[in-house]
Amino acid sequence: MTMGMWDKRDDMVVHGREPFNAEPPGTALARAAVTPADTFYSRNHGPVPRLDPADWRLTVDGLVARPLLLTLDDLRSRFAAAEATVTLQCAGNRRADLTAVRAVPGETPWGPGALSTARFRGARLADVLAHAGIAPEAAHVAFRAPDVSPSADPPQPYEVSVPRDRALTPDVLLAWSMNDAPLPPVHGAPLRVVVPGWIGARSVKWLVRVTARAAPSDGYFQATAYRLPPTDDEPDGVTLGPVPLNCAVLTPSDGAVLPRGPVEVTGYALAGEGRTVARVEVSPDGGRAWSRVALDEPAGPGAWQRWRTTFDLPAGDVLVLARAWDSTGAGMPESPASVWNPKGYVTNSWPRVRLHVR
Amino acid sequence: MTMGMWDKRDDMVVHGREPFNAEPPGTALARAAVTPADTFYSRNHGPVPRLDPADWRLTVDGLVARPLLLTLDDLRSRFAAAEATVTLQCAGNRRADLTAVRAVPGETPWGPGALSTARFRGARLADVLAHAGIAPEAAHVAFRAPDVSPSADPPQPYEVSVPRDRALTPDVLLAWSMNDAPLPPVHGAPLRVVVPGWIGARSVKWLVRVTARAAPSDGYFQATAYRLPPTDDEPDGVTLGPVPLNCAVLTPSDGAVLPRGPVEVTGYALAGEGRTVARVEVSPDGGRAWSRVALDEPAGPGAWQRWRTTFDLPAGDVLVLARAWDSTGAGMPESPASVWNPKGYVTNSWPRVRLHVR
Repeated sequence: MTMGMWDKRDDMVVHGREPFNAEPPGTALARAAVTPADTFYSRNHGPVPRLDPADWRLTVDGLVARPLLLTLDDLRSRFAAAEATVTLQCAGNRRADLTAVRAVPGETPWGPGALSTARFRGARLADVLAHAGIAPEAAHVAFRAPDVSPSADPPQPYEVSVPRDRALTPDVLLAWSMNDAPLPPVHGAPLRVVVPGWIGARSVKWLVRVTARAAPSDGYFQATAYRLPPTDDEPDGVTLGPVPLNCAVLTPSDGAVLPRGPVEVTGYALAGEGRTVARVEVSPDGGRAWSRVALDEPAGPGAWQRWRTTFDLPAGDVLVLARAWDSTGAGMPESPASVWNPKGYVTNSWPRVRLHVR
Repeated sequence: MTMGMWDKRDDMVVHGREPFNAEPPGTALARAAVTPADTFYSRNHGPVPRLDPADWRLTVDGLVARPLLLTLDDLRSRFAAAEATVTLQCAGNRRADLTAVRAVPGETPWGPGALSTARFRGARLADVLAHAGIAPEAAHVAFRAPDVSPSADPPQPYEVSVPRDRALTPDVLLAWSMNDAPLPPVHGAPLRVVVPGWIGARSVKWLVRVTARAAPSDGYFQATAYRLPPTDDEPDGVTLGPVPLNCAVLTPSDGAVLPRGPVEVTGYALAGEGRTVARVEVSPDGGRAWSRVALDEPAGPGAWQRWRTTFDLPAGDVLVLARAWDSTGAGMPESPASVWNPKGYVTNSWPRVRLHVR
């Protein structure tokens, strides 16, 4: 396999080159429980910064007793390293299913591949904040990166925040390694945040500053973008954070033309924070019959679960559907029409794959 | 208002007298954020025990260092009292919406009133278990009551369990008081469990025994009932615990005939454990137009939120729908057909109220 941009496989679906936005084809993503770095989706808001690890420093400041200035060696030597297999998911994952209902202007039409899984290793954010002495009045923790986004209004470095409780949960990592190798530049070298179960937008790459604050970040990507429904007339839209239950079909791809005979259908499911996937069903006939499918064991509490099943499909047009339930008994909305929203976030309707069998 | 059975208001919808199962009419439930005791829904599996508080004892045993035998005075005097306003919800709440799709034989056709809210006061279960010295290998905590259910197979006293983590969260109460009065007999006097955000079946009434265990309770109501989908051919159905996002219309009631003019529509929404309700919308025309409605502030993290809105409805048949989103951006399934299951649990499709306007 020759290499594409940013050391990615050359069959990535590249939605944009600058900023670089790309997702793996379903066949590639379906292949392994842990996504190789060359296959991992990439979502960016500006040019990829090239930071020299030797010069790089992490500032920890704001509402803390002891502001810190840390090198990468400091992080590795002063804090216990933790490792976890985590699925990161773009808030726009599966947006293409919404555009089938109505256009979502100005947003990337992600398929089901704006989601990938890696083994991350790093220091626990909670340990670093404890070392700095986070103050009781710090209700939020902001993450700052140097990539300046031209799509922000006004253009500004990337900054978002998470609530204190989330920041102090021990699963949040300041990761320097991805799949046992240093973070690649396009994935945030030398250090990124990993917030399992939350939209990828909170797992800030090229991290340079952690600031304990009384209020959420007032940056564009916290206060304006990544809100649902982010319409001008409803400024109090929902700030997206934790991601809900979702599932998708990875293969065959939508629109595929197939020969008759057994067809393997593969996909994934993942539950929201604090929940597990209880059940996945797949229909080979537009929802008349449903088969329960077995799920692979997840590699950890923040990781996806893959599934596969085989159908003998009749000739003609076939609509394959999938649906999942979580450990509370909650399911997914049936139709993309009911989840359509102006920015196309959180597409969690039943995935629909149209096939033609010859 | 004259009194009905068990000191309930006489306009309760009584689904069964023995065991006593009753829900308040929507008008009564909608009236107050905290449900009066005479209006609170009642779900029972056997005859209501009459326990003398003076003779009553609570046994705390199993995988603990120091088994306890506690009087009600012991609980009040040895442990700090805690208070919370909590909405309890039957796993079968809104089942009637499913029976419109297909019958659910042998189960009570609850409307949207198998859910009520009270201010509970009691000791924290975590404090009692700490006092007893819960062992590290205790992965579950079982609650036993003396009411023998004839519907269990075989007939047996009521017992269920919750996982250790849930039991040790400080919001779980051993409550002796409801709305500033001693628990009424039908609500578990002298002591009941209150597990916010979980199906009502885990908030065991007439509590007599708390047992720390390595495995979940093997009683009928844990191992067989309250599972989704609880079919014979799928013994590994989901054990219901936390309840998902839901909303309902309380007034007008389904099938109402109304005069023309402004019609107030009222209802409630509540999110699952660890989430909040982000948005509720109501449609006066079967889903073509939707209005966002304002939500009352919840009385606490485990409490419902009421809402109301007014529509000028045209003459003829009208279908009112409602839908909610939680803080993860997750919505509700549109149709009851997609959530139908053999025991009719966890009905969380969009509520549908058919009206006729003259």
